[in-house]
Amino acid sequence: MPDALLARLAAIVGEAHVIAEAAAMQPWLTDWRGRYHGAARCIVRPGARAEVAAVVAACAAAGAPIVPQGGNTSLCGAATPDASGVAIVLNLGRLNRILAVDPVNDTITVEVGCTLAAVQAAARAAGRLFPLALAAEGTCQIGGNLSTNAGGVQVLRYGNARELTLGLEVVLADGTLWNGLRGLRKDNTGYDLKQVFIGAEGTLGVITAAVLKLFALPPVQTTCWLNVATPAAAVALLRQAKDAFDAQLTAFELISDTALGLVLRHIPDSRRPGAASPWYVLAEFSGTEPAAVETWLAARLAENAVADGTVAHSPTQARQLWALRENISEAQKIEGLSIKHDIAVPVSRLADFLAQADAALTTAFPDIRIVAFGHVGDGNLHYNLSRPASDNAAFIAQQPAVHRRVHDIVHALGGSISAEHGLGQLKREEILRYKSAAEMALMRAVKQALDPRGLMNPGKLL
Amino acid sequence: MPDALLARLAAIVGEAHVIAEAAAMQPWLTDWRGRYHGAARCIVRPGARAEVAAVVAACAAAGAPIVPQGGNTSLCGAATPDASGVAIVLNLGRLNRILAVDPVNDTITVEVGCTLAAVQAAARAAGRLFPLALAAEGTCQIGGNLSTNAGGVQVLRYGNARELTLGLEVVLADGTLWNGLRGLRKDNTGYDLKQVFIGAEGTLGVITAAVLKLFALPPVQTTCWLNVATPAAAVALLRQAKDAFDAQLTAFELISDTALGLVLRHIPDSRRPGAASPWYVLAEFSGTEPAAVETWLAARLAENAVADGTVAHSPTQARQLWALRENISEAQKIEGLSIKHDIAVPVSRLADFLAQADAALTTAFPDIRIVAFGHVGDGNLHYNLSRPASDNAAFIAQQPAVHRRVHDIVHALGGSISAEHGLGQLKREEILRYKSAAEMALMRAVKQALDPRGLMNPGKLL
Repeated sequence: MPDALLARLAAIVGEAHVIAEAAAMQPWLTDWRGRYHGAARCIVRPGARAEVAAVVAACAAAGAPIVPQGGNTSLCGAATPDASGVAIVLNLGRLNRILAVDPVNDTITVEVGCTLAAVQAAARAAGRLFPLALAAEGTCQIGGNLSTNAGGVQVLRYGNARELTLGLEVVLADGTLWNGLRGLRKDNTGYDLKQVFIGAEGTLGVITAAVLKLFALPPVQTTCWLNVATPAAAVALLRQAKDAFDAQLTAFELISDTALGLVLRHIPDSRRPGAASPWYVLAEFSGTEPAAVETWLAARLAENAVADGTVAHSPTQARQLWALRENISEAQKIEGLSIKHDIAVPVSRLADFLAQADAALTTAFPDIRIVAFGHVGDGNLHYNLSRPASDNAAFIAQQPAVHRRVHDIVHALGGSISAEHGLGQLKREEILRYKSAAEMALMRAVKQALDPRGLMNPGKLL
Repeated sequence: MPDALLARLAAIVGEAHVIAEAAAMQPWLTDWRGRYHGAARCIVRPGARAEVAAVVAACAAAGAPIVPQGGNTSLCGAATPDASGVAIVLNLGRLNRILAVDPVNDTITVEVGCTLAAVQAAARAAGRLFPLALAAEGTCQIGGNLSTNAGGVQVLRYGNARELTLGLEVVLADGTLWNGLRGLRKDNTGYDLKQVFIGAEGTLGVITAAVLKLFALPPVQTTCWLNVATPAAAVALLRQAKDAFDAQLTAFELISDTALGLVLRHIPDSRRPGAASPWYVLAEFSGTEPAAVETWLAARLAENAVADGTVAHSPTQARQLWALRENISEAQKIEGLSIKHDIAVPVSRLADFLAQADAALTTAFPDIRIVAFGHVGDGNLHYNLSRPASDNAAFIAQQPAVHRRVHDIVHALGGSISAEHGLGQLKREEILRYKSAAEMALMRAVKQALDPRGLMNPGKLL
């Protein structure tokens, strides 16, 4: 029996861009971490924003649920359909044009299928910086970054994806195209509607284009690897660095010796910079002379705020220091199974969190290995656990109990159980434990208002 | 006949804090600029956030509209009730406690009735900076600043009120208290609900408390007064300043010679710094050595990007330069009637805007005087007109036609007809000319979802 909706979609985007064969659909039906495997009626790949509007209108008319998908790098299954096979996967990868770069206004206008790396490159070609940076940047697409309000290593200075966005174009649940592509730093003419769609994981509409902020390219950067005794010492050092360098402090990452150890074991050509320490800070200073950083660091060494420090004296050395940080996830993958958390607490509670979580886990699960690292400047830690020597099955069986203990501590400290990865399928049930009834009711009211039929990315976030 | 609702409100907040006598209510029924005069059933002044929730619930039960009010400094009549006399004015001025300062997390938690100056002072007492700054700061309250997404002179570096907000507590239209007082830099656990209430001018709920960002106090600031030939030269200079100083450029204000002339005429002890010029830039650099600014300025003078420049060599001199900028509105008031605009365009279109608007106005209204100044770094100008020598009545009669011409040009350039003042009563009709049907429908859908009975600040914004 012919599928009338698929014929309609093919008429909109062209036969070649509607994929309905089971085997051909597979790459788009499994998430990046391989935890979710869904099914779909088809994958549709529009090549123009007006086509997205027509596709959504056609799906709405047919009552077909839509799963918007960018680079498919969600860590929470946000872009993977459920198993029912009724959903249309709306893949936005062909919408990959840079629409405009305005170096005087410091803005770039892009379609959402541009990879993050492509946006960075277009900015750089115009002599400007687009500062969003994260591990998946070569694959992830800006639409996904916006729909999950992506973070990364430079949030400390430049903010999350939300703070980098001035305007959006969105296809609404009924297929209406809303053009909010403004490039304004100040605009108070009613509700700031773009905020509703940023971080909504495609559950309220499909973002098709965005106006993003650009910045001056830092003329000079200094990268340091600093040994600190405790997380509390790292937080105190952060305070000193912010007081001395303010916005010129562009990254401040915490790395445990356990995390570094996995990198040294599994990643070729990795070397420990300087002496061993229970904790390390990777700090990056931008736009200030290296001599100013070195003077500041000498004072910190003299007062024992830092036990040992390495300042990169070449871009190559800076990249080597960054690789130690960036390879932690890869090293953990090679090491074996892991249980992951993406949490945030107020920076002032970060040491408390680590003390409480470490104590709770090592008491309950004596052979667990804690691999803690992350963006201490944002209060955001990737608090991961690596498989102990014992068997995998026992480790994985512990996962719900481990999550519960960690997230209960996070919640008690006023924190978030998803700092930068979103909820997707992974945490949409768990969040019910931590959000108030008032907050859930508000979220459902917004969903009901903008997607009354519940067709936009069902089963995600809410 | 006794008013049952007033009795109920008095039971909640105490007799002394329900004001229902016509004469006593007057101060709260007229807006700051004296353009709107409303009536109310009473003014209610709760002393605790739980009382706000109870007041809103009581009003909801009675079907009484609510007009939330902070320092009553709206420039658009957003806090003034209509003439019907049915509204309850909910004045939040007694909610003026600083709840917490966390210098390690760089956050301050405040009740909304704190004046902006009180929040600044509490931050400073803890050795931190709360950077929101604007002319009304001694009177305006933080709740109004959040409800209008206030801007001001440091947006270039620190962002609008929205970007300074990490968490909110809001009383919803049915009296439910939503506690979203989080102090997190990263939190992606569903829709970012605080964004809906920021800038909503009290039409979706009543903000009762907020967690705001703090920053390092700049150890040193350098203020300069720079002569430039044209607005285009000012924009080019902005580019150079941002490239050289990035976030250390904390203000960049444009002032026309006409605007300065009014200050020199009407404000005692005002002096022109240096030579006369068609345009001036007031620039402030923070956290960088004055010598670096002077070296940079010398290069700009050498290449004629700047025709003349004055660098303040004492805090007193810096304050004098700032006073020239800050007294423009006051000088314009003394000069006589004025027609005002609060517009934004992309920074790259700012010179185009001025050229087009000046040409249109001087053609249509030959004796009009253009008083242009504002936050060029944000693309935001206060494009004002002062009364010509001719009579007031003719001038005021021109107002709708002047607004139309200016706002049409703004809109054609992709700009905003309310950059930082909001819509209130003043522009809620006019915005219908410039917003798309899709955008208005989205705004109404949000309003309907959160305030289905339309009791929250009716007649404002929407």
